[in-house]
Amino acid sequence: MKAQSTSLRVRLPVFLFVTQVITVALYAAFVTYDEHVDARFQTNRTNHIDNAVYRDYPVFTHIQVMIFLGFGCLLAFFRLYGFGGMVFNFLVATFAIQWAILVQGYFQFSYEGKIHLGVINLINAEFACAVVLISFGAVLGKTSPLQLLVMALLEVPLFAVTEWAVLRYLKINDAGGSILIHLFACYFGLGVTFVLYRPSLNKGHAKENTSYQSDIMSLIGTLFLWVFWPSFNSALTLKGDDQHRAILHTFISLSASTLTAFALSAMLNKNGKITMADIQNVTLAGGVTVGASVDMMISPAAAYALGMMGCIACMLGYKFLSPFLARHFRIQDQCGIHNLHGLTGLISCAAGICAILMANEEVYGPSLYEIFSHRAPVEGDPKLQELQMLIPGLQPGLGRTAQEQALFQVAAVFSTIGVSALGGILTGFVLKLPFLAPPSDDLCFDDKLFFDVPLDYDSPLKVYNTITTDDSAA
Amino acid sequence: MKAQSTSLRVRLPVFLFVTQVITVALYAAFVTYDEHVDARFQTNRTNHIDNAVYRDYPVFTHIQVMIFLGFGCLLAFFRLYGFGGMVFNFLVATFAIQWAILVQGYFQFSYEGKIHLGVINLINAEFACAVVLISFGAVLGKTSPLQLLVMALLEVPLFAVTEWAVLRYLKINDAGGSILIHLFACYFGLGVTFVLYRPSLNKGHAKENTSYQSDIMSLIGTLFLWVFWPSFNSALTLKGDDQHRAILHTFISLSASTLTAFALSAMLNKNGKITMADIQNVTLAGGVTVGASVDMMISPAAAYALGMMGCIACMLGYKFLSPFLARHFRIQDQCGIHNLHGLTGLISCAAGICAILMANEEVYGPSLYEIFSHRAPVEGDPKLQELQMLIPGLQPGLGRTAQEQALFQVAAVFSTIGVSALGGILTGFVLKLPFLAPPSDDLCFDDKLFFDVPLDYDSPLKVYNTITTDDSAA
Amino acid sequence: MKAQSTSLRVRLPVFLFVTQVITVALYAAFVTYDEHVDARFQTNRTNHIDNAVYRDYPVFTHIQVMIFLGFGCLLAFFRLYGFGGMVFNFLVATFAIQWAILVQGYFQFSYEGKIHLGVINLINAEFACAVVLISFGAVLGKTSPLQLLVMALLEVPLFAVTEWAVLRYLKINDAGGSILIHLFACYFGLGVTFVLYRPSLNKGHAKENTSYQSDIMSLIGTLFLWVFWPSFNSALTLKGDDQHRAILHTFISLSASTLTAFALSAMLNKNGKITMADIQNVTLAGGVTVGASVDMMISPAAAYALGMMGCIACMLGYKFLSPFLARHFRIQDQCGIHNLHGLTGLISCAAGICAILMANEEVYGPSLYEIFSHRAPVEGDPKLQELQMLIPGLQPGLGRTAQEQALFQVAAVFSTIGVSALGGILTGFVLKLPFLAPPSDDLCFDDKLFFDVPLDYDSPLKVYNTITTDDSAA
Repeated sequence: MKAQSTSLRVRLPVFLFVTQVITVALYAAFVTYDEHVDARFQTNRTNHIDNAVYRDYPVFTHIQVMIFLGFGCLLAFFRLYGFGGMVFNFLVATFAIQWAILVQGYFQFSYEGKIHLGVINLINAEFACAVVLISFGAVLGKTSPLQLLVMALLEVPLFAVTEWAVLRYLKINDAGGSILIHLFACYFGLGVTFVLYRPSLNKGHAKENTSYQSDIMSLIGTLFLWVFWPSFNSALTLKGDDQHRAILHTFISLSASTLTAFALSAMLNKNGKITMADIQNVTLAGGVTVGASVDMMISPAAAYALGMMGCIACMLGYKFLSPFLARHFRIQDQCGIHNLHGLTGLISCAAGICAILMANEEVYGPSLYEIFSHRAPVEGDPKLQELQMLIPGLQPGLGRTAQEQALFQVAAVFSTIGVSALGGILTGFVLKLPFLAPPSDDLCFDDKLFFDVPLDYDSPLKVYNTITTDDSAA
Repeated sequence: MKAQSTSLRVRLPVFLFVTQVITVALYAAFVTYDEHVDARFQTNRTNHIDNAVYRDYPVFTHIQVMIFLGFGCLLAFFRLYGFGGMVFNFLVATFAIQWAILVQGYFQFSYEGKIHLGVINLINAEFACAVVLISFGAVLGKTSPLQLLVMALLEVPLFAVTEWAVLRYLKINDAGGSILIHLFACYFGLGVTFVLYRPSLNKGHAKENTSYQSDIMSLIGTLFLWVFWPSFNSALTLKGDDQHRAILHTFISLSASTLTAFALSAMLNKNGKITMADIQNVTLAGGVTVGASVDMMISPAAAYALGMMGCIACMLGYKFLSPFLARHFRIQDQCGIHNLHGLTGLISCAAGICAILMANEEVYGPSLYEIFSHRAPVEGDPKLQELQMLIPGLQPGLGRTAQEQALFQVAAVFSTIGVSALGGILTGFVLKLPFLAPPSDDLCFDDKLFFDVPLDYDSPLKVYNTITTDDSAA
Repeated sequence: MKAQSTSLRVRLPVFLFVTQVITVALYAAFVTYDEHVDARFQTNRTNHIDNAVYRDYPVFTHIQVMIFLGFGCLLAFFRLYGFGGMVFNFLVATFAIQWAILVQGYFQFSYEGKIHLGVINLINAEFACAVVLISFGAVLGKTSPLQLLVMALLEVPLFAVTEWAVLRYLKINDAGGSILIHLFACYFGLGVTFVLYRPSLNKGHAKENTSYQSDIMSLIGTLFLWVFWPSFNSALTLKGDDQHRAILHTFISLSASTLTAFALSAMLNKNGKITMADIQNVTLAGGVTVGASVDMMISPAAAYALGMMGCIACMLGYKFLSPFLARHFRIQDQCGIHNLHGLTGLISCAAGICAILMANEEVYGPSLYEIFSHRAPVEGDPKLQELQMLIPGLQPGLGRTAQEQALFQVAAVFSTIGVSALGGILTGFVLKLPFLAPPSDDLCFDDKLFFDVPLDYDSPLKVYNTITTDDSAA
């Protein structure tokens, strides 16, 4: 009976075909091209070189590599769950992006009754997808593809609404997405895994380990993420020096967290050896930690220090906090997303707030009011006209002070955490529906449940026997 | 005797050195720089930022990754033929590109007795190379590197002539290369494999299977192709909104075919499990299917629908048509290129023709005559002058109607299929020459024939024994 | 006692934390943003599209992929040293880049008492990092991470001083870094390995071999390097046609060396089979060989011929010279860097000198004096004014003749080799300090010394046993 209960033969196609038919209907009814894509908008004054595609596409390809190859390889670290990690990542990412194009499109890119599509929408949708994939990390190996798709189905709209509400009403600075992406994803994922708690897994699981090859594959994923993270953190900043700073700070912070991770890995290992899981995960802490202030004038030294701090928090989280949460709070965080995205995200938010409080015209010059656009004087303020002499095209803002902006950041942090945790818990209850085919405890972290696996997947010896027979027969 | 007959010691170096000497002689005699590469053409009015390298090189690097890493990993899916898949791909790709630079250069980029070289030639040559690599998929594991090189030697000129003739005389729209690349490559490859038919392989082969690691490696190749396919389909479109549409449509169509592939894979598997081969191949169907209309105003919904349709055709092809062709028509299509490139290519051509028939000024505005350049009015037509007011620099066309253009597309499809199938069959007979070192049936799909293989290649146990001995000795 | 002596628990954290504290202090005291990064420098005349980040970042990402994924995978070729190759590459690269930012910054990018930072510094620092990683190839598997970090600590400043002195006083042309990067890295590495000579390794080592998977992984590294090498060789050329030529020449030369490598690999193997190590290494020879003349008007044919020549030298070096050096000169060059970077580098320098001697206004037009900027007339020469009519903004040079320039190139070659070899030898003596935890002979090429390894790392059979027990228990 169990074998039947996890068969994907009916339920996966039903889910996918229904959602696809809805998707294509929504596309047909509500999606059109934006002005950089539509042939009709090209006039004799159009200079094709100025098309937004040349600004957005390079960054988009980098984020594509991060999502599909970076996350994909990184999540393939279990010895018997390499297919699951990489393939479910592929499935969930593709689904989440399509869904996000529609939902975010509705909230952020629609006017005249239509969602207007360009590569910029794809970048935004891949950010929403990254949120889902981070949350996925909390329940890796313990969920069916159907559960993951339902999670994406629910998480994407909640994320899109939160993103829209925070950007529209709280109007925060969060270039690298520390609040909206990392904190949201983390607490949503923790909410889900809290509900999906499996007591037996706290005692350890025979298949919850890596192999030599899976460790290497996972490290390759880390390296893809590491290499292209500056593009992730700078994708949605203002162009020019802001983007340049974001790239520089991300690189420096990642370097700092990488070196710190090696130091701590050897130091906290009782034999003084390096632990691969640390290199695969903790090295990336700097990319998150610098996120909220990544485009600000924080100085290279501060980026370096943030990388170190984020890494220390992340590493201590892995060593001490994660086991504690699993034992006492029913939070089984499979990939330790609370360490890599939660703790670092909180530090990032704090650093962002400090950077906001310290930002002044002396350091930024008049472009202070571009980066912190809500601090720009309100329409009608004579100061605005002065500034518009210095920065043509500066938009009127809300005249916020640094302190006010900081308070809105704080509000965004708490409301994001609250909404995402609650959403995660509710989603968790939905995921408990039995027809979503959750794996039994003993078939967690095991590809044979959902895949036709090759003969050697759990033991190369079986292959050897085949070959011997074959050779002797030949 | 058999061991000798497949030794590459003499024949591979002879082939490669002879072709290399000829190549370098042809380079010396006929190849020079184009005006973006030659220092003499730079004047005091040259703006280095406008050099074509900045337009072409980013796309070129994406296609490089697809060719060498994407195809390379994808073709490494056999358990004992990982070296063969990846290394022969490397060899054949490099050879085909060099050969295509010369042959395409002669047909398309030569004037004043010289071939003029720039990065744009490399992009075109990599397209010719993709043709060879797709055909390679039909005979993977059953051919020696020498056979593959001879195939490339013959296929590249036939492709170059066909491409040149179709573009020059039939003047078709085929931005993603569905006709010229995918259909040509597919039917050429089927022609070759038809002649190289091995009856014994129809009963199955002990080594024709995957391992856990080879499946993962192959999926990584798929992901490289998936991620960069928008660059492939948009590399040779017009700049600006055309390229933007091509990227968007390719991404949407790939997403649709990916989700559909997951649904069908579970549905058509009798245990309701996911089959890795489907994920490795069928997910990519959308990239081909949208190819012929990829830069047209087909709407995002149509791109989505095309991805689904292509995927369904491709999947059904794998399940039912390929075994049928192998059994009844002697067509052993190793990687199923007829499904991934043939069936999808045909759908793509049909969709392209529909899109051409439906194209009008209402949807495209005056840029209709840029995209469908052969529909532009002929020289002297007063309508041309009107249009040139709207689109400065519009070239006079042939004044074709939509129906005429559609007919030329149909002609291109049939002539391409005819030429490529015939060429493939003739090439197949050449490949049967015995000194090309074809592998014997039992050594198909086996790296030990052409490689010095490590001890553990077919059985990790052998390594274990070495270590044990070694440890006890130490 | 031996186990204790290689524990990283204290010494690695101490080294890393001390250097990190120094780094962050130096950053705080001396590092600021350059004018493309600093918000204060943006005025109402700033066009954000002209920010240097859009020129430098794409190339930077390519070099990132080469350093972290290319070198990382390539160095993972030992069967039991996959973690070591990839992880120590990650560690050393990150450390070397940070260190190079500061040291190169001091020599090349500092004014007004501050180092001014932008993405361009990162590119330069990654070049310095490439130097360290090439040298690393000579001692791969025989050194502790601490030794490697100390090597980077010493090599980076020596490289930075040499680079600065050669560029400032000898003023050479070396776009691809054949002299400054490849020759320096090679002879430094040979110096180190000469001092770290281990007699027992000359008899062969039980773990000095590859596995099927490690060979594939290493080839993937090769392919990453191959695909992006044109970006490496063109990163620091002049923009426009110079960069275009550098890309074209690198691609052609790599193709030539790849095809030659296949020919020679089969020819020199006594069974006429292909050797993976040749494909992993020798195919890349063309990238180095074309380096010194990569931006000059050498003609495509010459680029092709250089690729072939470099490949032949490299291959013969692997087959005959490396064993000879190991046996008679105590030079155990683990990855054969003398073949891939030394011999090819020397050919490259010779070719560069020929190209310089043959360069004239007939071939280059007036831009001769841009590429060979030291041949431009001196300030006050009437010829300079004439040229400035043709090339606005041409800087006055030193009025060198081609012969003079060639002599300076020769001087640069010999002084670079001398300095780097001596520096390598001295560094070697420092690396012999016992607290740097060198591995014992029998634990060379073995991950278990410095890593917590998974159960199956040296034998998949161990996993099989676990599973069996587990299954029978279940």
